[in-house]
Amino acid sequence: MDSGAALIVTDMLNPYDHEDADVLAENTAPMVQTLARLIAEAQDGDVELVYVNDNYGDFTATRDDVVRRALEGRRPDLIEPIVPPPGVAFLQKVRHSAFYSTSLDHMLRQRSLGTVVLAGQVTEQCILYTALDAYVRHYDIRVVRDAVAHIDEELGDAALRMMARNMRCDVVESAAALRPA
Amino acid sequence: MDSGAALIVTDMLNPYDHEDADVLAENTAPMVQTLARLIAEAQDGDVELVYVNDNYGDFTATRDDVVRRALEGRRPDLIEPIVPPPGVAFLQKVRHSAFYSTSLDHMLRQRSLGTVVLAGQVTEQCILYTALDAYVRHYDIRVVRDAVAHIDEELGDAALRMMARNMRCDVVESAAALRPA
Amino acid sequence: MDSGAALIVTDMLNPYDHEDADVLAENTAPMVQTLARLIAEAQDGDVELVYVNDNYGDFTATRDDVVRRALEGRRPDLIEPIVPPPGVAFLQKVRHSAFYSTSLDHMLRQRSLGTVVLAGQVTEQCILYTALDAYVRHYDIRVVRDAVAHIDEELGDAALRMMARNMRCDVVESAAALRPA
Amino acid sequence: MDSGAALIVTDMLNPYDHEDADVLAENTAPMVQTLARLIAEAQDGDVELVYVNDNYGDFTATRDDVVRRALEGRRPDLIEPIVPPPGVAFLQKVRHSAFYSTSLDHMLRQRSLGTVVLAGQVTEQCILYTALDAYVRHYDIRVVRDAVAHIDEELGDAALRMMARNMRCDVVESAAALRPA
Repeated sequence: MDSGAALIVTDMLNPYDHEDADVLAENTAPMVQTLARLIAEAQDGDVELVYVNDNYGDFTATRDDVVRRALEGRRPDLIEPIVPPPGVAFLQKVRHSAFYSTSLDHMLRQRSLGTVVLAGQVTEQCILYTALDAYVRHYDIRVVRDAVAHIDEELGDAALRMMARNMRCDVVESAAALRPA
Repeated sequence: MDSGAALIVTDMLNPYDHEDADVLAENTAPMVQTLARLIAEAQDGDVELVYVNDNYGDFTATRDDVVRRALEGRRPDLIEPIVPPPGVAFLQKVRHSAFYSTSLDHMLRQRSLGTVVLAGQVTEQCILYTALDAYVRHYDIRVVRDAVAHIDEELGDAALRMMARNMRCDVVESAAALRPA
Repeated sequence: MDSGAALIVTDMLNPYDHEDADVLAENTAPMVQTLARLIAEAQDGDVELVYVNDNYGDFTATRDDVVRRALEGRRPDLIEPIVPPPGVAFLQKVRHSAFYSTSLDHMLRQRSLGTVVLAGQVTEQCILYTALDAYVRHYDIRVVRDAVAHIDEELGDAALRMMARNMRCDVVESAAALRPA
Repeated sequence: MDSGAALIVTDMLNPYDHEDADVLAENTAPMVQTLARLIAEAQDGDVELVYVNDNYGDFTATRDDVVRRALEGRRPDLIEPIVPPPGVAFLQKVRHSAFYSTSLDHMLRQRSLGTVVLAGQVTEQCILYTALDAYVRHYDIRVVRDAVAHIDEELGDAALRMMARNMRCDVVESAAALRPA
């Protein structure tokens, strides 16, 4: 596998109008600034920045639609700090894993990016599933403990242990997340 | 497989600045109005309309970028008649087949669309490869003879024969392309 | 999705010579006879029976090799009751999910099998990952609580809760596992 | 992409009882000994040897079943020279491309095999489709002109031109097929 790294920002463009959205928003609030710093650090450095976001079943949505709907949703304060900067890679996904039915694997391989750094939401759902799909494809994986958000605390903790124990993920703090391997 | 149909418009948003672009543009000119009518017919009827277009290696491109670059390219006259209408499904692909590393298969299945109607370019490349990927996935396939464009006439003809003979495609004229099965 | 069901027996042909094999064998012993009965019930009824087993990195292994190595391993008592009967579908997998790089999805679709019944090992690894891959593909999923085996009890329990809560799995007892939906 | 090479022997274990089997057998006869020599050369050298063969819709078939049915078919003389040697990688496929729903891509990546050498049948079908799937995945591709067999001569020739022109394949003679790149 190859030597570069990509920071994958998953599902942060969320209108927070779904079931469990309130608890997710509450758990997201403390990590948004951390994630914003991580995004800035990736842009300043050698780490590729990639947003992957659900299209919520709307295959006609443009990237601008996805961003705008999140900003017009119930928690713009959680969106504004992490709006995708111009010129950043942006993939729409249709199910939970960032790899399923997207070009993520293809893009990472083409750019020789063998390490994925996972941040965003939801720890015990899309983050866990994306970690799994990265693991079976032999990527090196880092999960940024203070830049992911859970819905269910117990399941979120279990997900982090599964990723560390069974998927060879490094569960790291944001300060160390983009350090060269 | 399911009863609905989708018109797949492939790679028509082309700046025509690649190798062989001139000959492709020449072969595209006679079919653009035919394709425009087919697109209008799909919108008026029960056929799902889906644009699938290469991102030309730029994973930061938005849908608007892809359209604008084509319009600002060397043959805007071939783009204007088939600019994607607002509210139409639009998928970016990264290699030749419309199925590879995209959500096309997932979207068609979710919407119970078991028939794909193929139009666009290039007959002996992306159209052929998309037909193959549809065939191995057991879709019913129609290829619209007067709404596809080739680069090499002989290979284009061979591709149409391969699709008809070996991939069970119906090679149809546009007038009949969206008829119920 | 379609009306038939398949019992997926995952990774039971295990030589039990890997890390954590002893604890896995201990947790497998109480469920082997239950699984054997479920296999017999699938064969007697309308449920398709499919074995999916890791090839442990050996792409030259035949099905007979996989079975023989398990029987010659450290716990033949856990293999003998569930040796695949002649004439049963048998797929070799190369990573944790039964769907990854196998023909399972293709086979299930071709046979109109929209429900998967998951049994085997390891609850918090291959069973969880297979459930996830079935979930993103919109299968109906049952997980047979008394016919799966965990390594880590706490993670096994968390995996069952994740499957029930986040992947819409029915976690069922073996007595009800093959009941028509 | 990586430096090793694999010889992919496609669909040669054929009972020759399908439509067009007689013409295919006739076109296969002149290349069987060439292919047998190529297989021996791969085994003696540094090239990985991989058989990929259709399961003809039978997911219960073992590797031995696939070989035996071919030997018991209508042209055992075309099978005997190329029976897979013991200890060779052997993948069953379910549709035309050797990549679709198989572990071929995974195996090649794991073993750092970036070049595929294609031989077998049918030039304008499985060989063409496998070449395409290798091409979109960025493999280097060689097609062994005197170790592939067509059904339709004209389409076979067109397929070879498509592979050379549009998929960057080297169409080579068997004497040079396994030469280091």
